[in-house]
Amino acid sequence: MVHLDEASPEKHASVLLNISNLLNELGDGTQVELVVHGPGLSAVIAEAPHAAKVDELLSRGVTVAACAYTMRGMNISVDGLIDGVQVVPSGVAELVRRQRLGWAYIRP
Amino acid sequence: MVHLDEASPEKHASVLLNISNLLNELGDGTQVELVVHGPGLSAVIAEAPHAAKVDELLSRGVTVAACAYTMRGMNISVDGLIDGVQVVPSGVAELVRRQRLGWAYIRP
Amino acid sequence: MVHLDEASPEKHASVLLNISNLLNELGDGTQVELVVHGPGLSAVIAEAPHAAKVDELLSRGVTVAACAYTMRGMNISVDGLIDGVQVVPSGVAELVRRQRLGWAYIRP
Repeated sequence: MVHLDEASPEKHASVLLNISNLLNELGDGTQVELVVHGPGLSAVIAEAPHAAKVDELLSRGVTVAACAYTMRGMNISVDGLIDGVQVVPSGVAELVRRQRLGWAYIRP
Repeated sequence: MVHLDEASPEKHASVLLNISNLLNELGDGTQVELVVHGPGLSAVIAEAPHAAKVDELLSRGVTVAACAYTMRGMNISVDGLIDGVQVVPSGVAELVRRQRLGWAYIRP
Repeated sequence: MVHLDEASPEKHASVLLNISNLLNELGDGTQVELVVHGPGLSAVIAEAPHAAKVDELLSRGVTVAACAYTMRGMNISVDGLIDGVQVVPSGVAELVRRQRLGWAYIRP
């Protein structure tokens, strides 16, 4: 699991690159989930500067999960997200839930 | 466990909101501990801008733990903290200790 | 495991101090690994402002692991690092790998 809650596109580029490198290193079959919430949601909206990189990660099997709390707060619907991004009820709860299932957690 | 070590009141507001949402999602009985150290200590001093929100979380059963190392470094005694905030010898050691006990870790 | 991927020397000083305090609290025999990647690599180059503090932690038994991806990207060889710093193929993969082995994760 990779946790992203910052607004800056430079941060987004860096986190997306971290995930690419992680897949390169652990293999494309590795389950990786990027969880975005708060200001990090801007990384996965349709017009995000690094949307092409998000697409690439989705096509490599990465799950991208957006926080429904944040989406309501920012008045963004699922149609406003990059195709293939999933919605979870709460980004933070998702991070807790998956750790309980034994997933590792990285917060770049 | 939620880890806070940044100084900005906007960050504090955001982290406190994350915890509210987490409780909403997982239920008020969920054990949540906010660990503050370093510049994050300013979130839990009596005159903190978001002290009312900290009070609300305390009343919902959240444990708030302040780092004694940081308190000594900033010359703040337990009387200078919001009522109900607990003191732990080291914030970072607390984060390690609870992960060893199986607690999930979130660093917003 | 302590994760550092930020560029600012103030952040480096603070993270290195966190590790000192952690050793003070849990004892010098405690296994601690500092993983640096991305902009955080600047904390462990030979001319880093806080190189003496890194040396001190190394002498207390802390492992410091630098990301080879980042080193290639920044054109820094192992000779450019503080003596005793180790190189891992990927900093992020190292963080995942050790969590799978049961290590706690802290991202100050």
